[in-house]
Amino acid sequence: MTPEVSVLCLLLILLVPFAGAGLAIINAGLGRSRNAAHMMLSSLCVFALAAVVFFVIGFAFQGYPGGPAYEFIIRGKPWNWIAAEHFFLRGLPLDGSPASLVALLGMMSAGLAAMIPLGSGADRWRLGAACLSTTVLAAWTYPLFAHWVWSGWLAQLGFIDAGGAAPIQAVGGITALVVIWVLGPRRGKYTSDRMPMAIPGHNAVLVLLGCFLVWLGWIGLDCAGAILYAHAEPGRSVLVIVNATLSAAAALLAVAAITRIRFGKPDASLCANGWVSGLVASSAGCAVMPPAAAMIVGLVAGALVTYTVELLELHLTIDDPGGSISVHLFGGVWGILAVAFLAKSPAPSQGLAQLAGVATLLGFVLPLTYLIIQLLNRISRMRAAPEAERQGLDLHELGAGAYPDFMSHND
Amino acid sequence: MTPEVSVLCLLLILLVPFAGAGLAIINAGLGRSRNAAHMMLSSLCVFALAAVVFFVIGFAFQGYPGGPAYEFIIRGKPWNWIAAEHFFLRGLPLDGSPASLVALLGMMSAGLAAMIPLGSGADRWRLGAACLSTTVLAAWTYPLFAHWVWSGWLAQLGFIDAGGAAPIQAVGGITALVVIWVLGPRRGKYTSDRMPMAIPGHNAVLVLLGCFLVWLGWIGLDCAGAILYAHAEPGRSVLVIVNATLSAAAALLAVAAITRIRFGKPDASLCANGWVSGLVASSAGCAVMPPAAAMIVGLVAGALVTYTVELLELHLTIDDPGGSISVHLFGGVWGILAVAFLAKSPAPSQGLAQLAGVATLLGFVLPLTYLIIQLLNRISRMRAAPEAERQGLDLHELGAGAYPDFMSHND
Amino acid sequence: MTPEVSVLCLLLILLVPFAGAGLAIINAGLGRSRNAAHMMLSSLCVFALAAVVFFVIGFAFQGYPGGPAYEFIIRGKPWNWIAAEHFFLRGLPLDGSPASLVALLGMMSAGLAAMIPLGSGADRWRLGAACLSTTVLAAWTYPLFAHWVWSGWLAQLGFIDAGGAAPIQAVGGITALVVIWVLGPRRGKYTSDRMPMAIPGHNAVLVLLGCFLVWLGWIGLDCAGAILYAHAEPGRSVLVIVNATLSAAAALLAVAAITRIRFGKPDASLCANGWVSGLVASSAGCAVMPPAAAMIVGLVAGALVTYTVELLELHLTIDDPGGSISVHLFGGVWGILAVAFLAKSPAPSQGLAQLAGVATLLGFVLPLTYLIIQLLNRISRMRAAPEAERQGLDLHELGAGAYPDFMSHND
Repeated sequence: MTPEVSVLCLLLILLVPFAGAGLAIINAGLGRSRNAAHMMLSSLCVFALAAVVFFVIGFAFQGYPGGPAYEFIIRGKPWNWIAAEHFFLRGLPLDGSPASLVALLGMMSAGLAAMIPLGSGADRWRLGAACLSTTVLAAWTYPLFAHWVWSGWLAQLGFIDAGGAAPIQAVGGITALVVIWVLGPRRGKYTSDRMPMAIPGHNAVLVLLGCFLVWLGWIGLDCAGAILYAHAEPGRSVLVIVNATLSAAAALLAVAAITRIRFGKPDASLCANGWVSGLVASSAGCAVMPPAAAMIVGLVAGALVTYTVELLELHLTIDDPGGSISVHLFGGVWGILAVAFLAKSPAPSQGLAQLAGVATLLGFVLPLTYLIIQLLNRISRMRAAPEAERQGLDLHELGAGAYPDFMSHND
Repeated sequence: MTPEVSVLCLLLILLVPFAGAGLAIINAGLGRSRNAAHMMLSSLCVFALAAVVFFVIGFAFQGYPGGPAYEFIIRGKPWNWIAAEHFFLRGLPLDGSPASLVALLGMMSAGLAAMIPLGSGADRWRLGAACLSTTVLAAWTYPLFAHWVWSGWLAQLGFIDAGGAAPIQAVGGITALVVIWVLGPRRGKYTSDRMPMAIPGHNAVLVLLGCFLVWLGWIGLDCAGAILYAHAEPGRSVLVIVNATLSAAAALLAVAAITRIRFGKPDASLCANGWVSGLVASSAGCAVMPPAAAMIVGLVAGALVTYTVELLELHLTIDDPGGSISVHLFGGVWGILAVAFLAKSPAPSQGLAQLAGVATLLGFVLPLTYLIIQLLNRISRMRAAPEAERQGLDLHELGAGAYPDFMSHND
Repeated sequence: MTPEVSVLCLLLILLVPFAGAGLAIINAGLGRSRNAAHMMLSSLCVFALAAVVFFVIGFAFQGYPGGPAYEFIIRGKPWNWIAAEHFFLRGLPLDGSPASLVALLGMMSAGLAAMIPLGSGADRWRLGAACLSTTVLAAWTYPLFAHWVWSGWLAQLGFIDAGGAAPIQAVGGITALVVIWVLGPRRGKYTSDRMPMAIPGHNAVLVLLGCFLVWLGWIGLDCAGAILYAHAEPGRSVLVIVNATLSAAAALLAVAAITRIRFGKPDASLCANGWVSGLVASSAGCAVMPPAAAMIVGLVAGALVTYTVELLELHLTIDDPGGSISVHLFGGVWGILAVAFLAKSPAPSQGLAQLAGVATLLGFVLPLTYLIIQLLNRISRMRAAPEAERQGLDLHELGAGAYPDFMSHND
């Protein structure tokens, strides 16, 4: 790696925190004002905790492409399944080498994956429980799967995912789904005959400002991932940025058009979800798709968000205030699959490789996460008490509201 | 272009989205709370649409310095008037080459130019109409004029404008002016005897936070423009950053001092406008002025904002909630002209070249834009219905307010 | 300095404005809503003024490592005590050289130091007085001490402080302390029997969003400082970023745990203060500590904030709304001292060198600042009139509230 590529990677990684800041205010804005401080503090705590846990434990399991790893042999072929690094990054000089940059990017990616479920658990997930779940995610689930995707057996199969659609977005989205299953819907979300009530987010300005910030974060994630995990030429970053931008833009405009046609008015929250979903969906193939393909990926991602948000809420009684399942899980999976038929020159078996990744997510990560979260729920109850939900998590868990000076309709 | 200059440019371009985020929250904060979500969504949609349209069409007309172009011959001398690139960036490898970086910067600059009129049309411009106007701006007006300024006949005349004061700021500001002409003032802005009423912005914190963000965006714009369009040495970026900062700072302090002296109290909104105006005014000459000259540019830009905002509102009944005309049009034109006498070693004919640019803006871009917007207004009425204005565009156009939990004086 | 290191430094310096933006919204969020616009405008003005003053005067005194300076001779050894540069950066080509990058970083660092006292003077410090104090800070106190630390006699003694814990954080924190002494507590903060009343900040979302932004700013500060002042290899930036992140994370989690244990609930404002304090405390040794040591630094910084905020408020009747003394002064001093025993391979006399720095802060900067602020207070009274405090500084000093549309409990 030449010095200027190392410099480029380092600075791209420093864009990733904007994804954290953006997700935090999007999730806070989509929730209610009486839980806003709780969502912001949860976001910061989860990000911080994931960084610490990944440093202490996680990186030892994730490792880096070409690093030492344990293998198992099937029919004479060795398959790489877990890294053999040390805890506390021992023995890894933090000197700008590719391995050190992978460790740095991993610290931030683990934090991002851990923030995704917060949007789904909004208004009812206890901070302590979110921290517990983050610990396991950053120590085990994320690093293991990240190893498979970027250095391990999935990479050996030819699975393509430069920006982390699988280990960050889909793993985060699966955790979000499981968290909702365990938590159940918010009080008052469904009437006695299971009709959903609209609970509007408390601050659309935060949500849409967050869209600008996550865009930059994703650019950092995708470009750095393309260089570090997929060994893309640094100049290809231009393609990655154009792709991410066009995909997000297409998804946003698709949602605006669809909601305008269906409901007469574009829906601002769904538009924001669409924008993020376009970013998510372009993550996997950002470095191998032509720009026109990225626009198609975004258009489909936008449509997918619009319809699946409704499907989940209306027909499956899944109450997902932040839309994390539609945005991060469905958007991520769609992006992974899209690589197979929209990449510039896909390998003949690309479709199988991508399907193997999705199958592993659904067949292994989903049940594993379900077991972990169920177990953690027994150790420490995840759902806030009914009284806490009525009062708001800010007052109940933190002892102070986010906006004490303003008069609220809840007062 | 050496690899490290390509890396520098790429990363500088990634600062430009902060200008988008900053302008969005400045415009939202200067408008009323009942239109805040609408302003934010318009900003994101306009930015996204401009990126898509520029990718599909605009770049084919803008091209890049030294790229293929159509020429016309006057007295034996060929003048370059429009680029001869392909639609959809076909044939342009997105590989970090100067041409690819120009395309990337163009996508973002077109979006920025398109966001400027939003501040002027605040509280009464329909989202659909803003999208229509953006499409024409990003497909035709911006790319054509950008070609003239950076590669075409104006560049051949020696016109200096590294940071896009003409094609981004002034073109955006001219569109803002035309939009106001067509829309007319907000309901309740003027009494029956044409006295303006103060309609304060709803969130000064957003406005001033936006000032920090646009600063970074302008630095990216100016530095990348200086390298890509004016072939400045990369190290000159330090000069550009110092100049942009000093100009913004001087403009802010000038406004604070003037409003303090005239009205007894510094005006926070005008101060923010001054800061942005200082950035705008320093764009053209950022790479060729000494820092002390940049401070003078900023001081004048600040004074200009203070007086022209009042002039427009009081004497010309031009209702410009975001101050876009004073900030972007007047600030930009002032900056273009200032190059002639404040640049370090101006060419003898620099004044003529700069005047040619301004004359083209006023004599060509202004009438062209007027015709386009008038035509578009016939296709789709730009102004929201009176009922929409009374109710707020958030509720009327989006079906939901930005801040449903908070009690407002409008309730 | 190779071109790619120059590029890296330049872009790292462009992260520093995020520290300004972050501190501004943290301080605004920790204050009351009726002073929010005032805090934001003060932040922008102070940042702008510091940049201008540093450009005009300050840099002449600070200079850069290895640049021309005045010396005094003690026992035959020359000690470097003040730089011999020109006003207005005359004679310094702004071309990406180390000296020009030091000047650019200095402009931003002076602004940052000047913003720290704003948090302490919240709700009662007049804007004009803050500008006056900033002028002296940016022209004299900051540059002089920065020269000592990075090029002068403290550097010659072996004092280590790559990220500016002493000249930025501690000098800013000392100014904050003096400002509070001169201003006194807010009206209504203490009952007649000196019991403190809780005055909650008006917007926890702003405060916690600010935490994400300052993180990036500190990374820029620490990495650029390590390269420019401590001549660290550029690749060591990875270590610096990991250290800053782990220290902030550890401090945040320490505060959350301590407040949870002591009061039953984690305190969001203190958590934010802890996060910033972790960044502050890691500044001095960021480039020479192993990551595990950075976590210890953060843990202690977090505990320090929790206890000293209470100590100052309860026992010393020091009313510090932004917590600047605990965060920036105590956090900075702790970080300076920690270098002596937590650095990887400290020099035998490292402890003495670090103590010399702290002794200079307390024995020289503190009395000097006290004299200056007292003098300035005679020239222009620093504290707002009682009527202004009752009404809010927004209305009284700026003529308009920050949030005119929202109904407030203060109305």
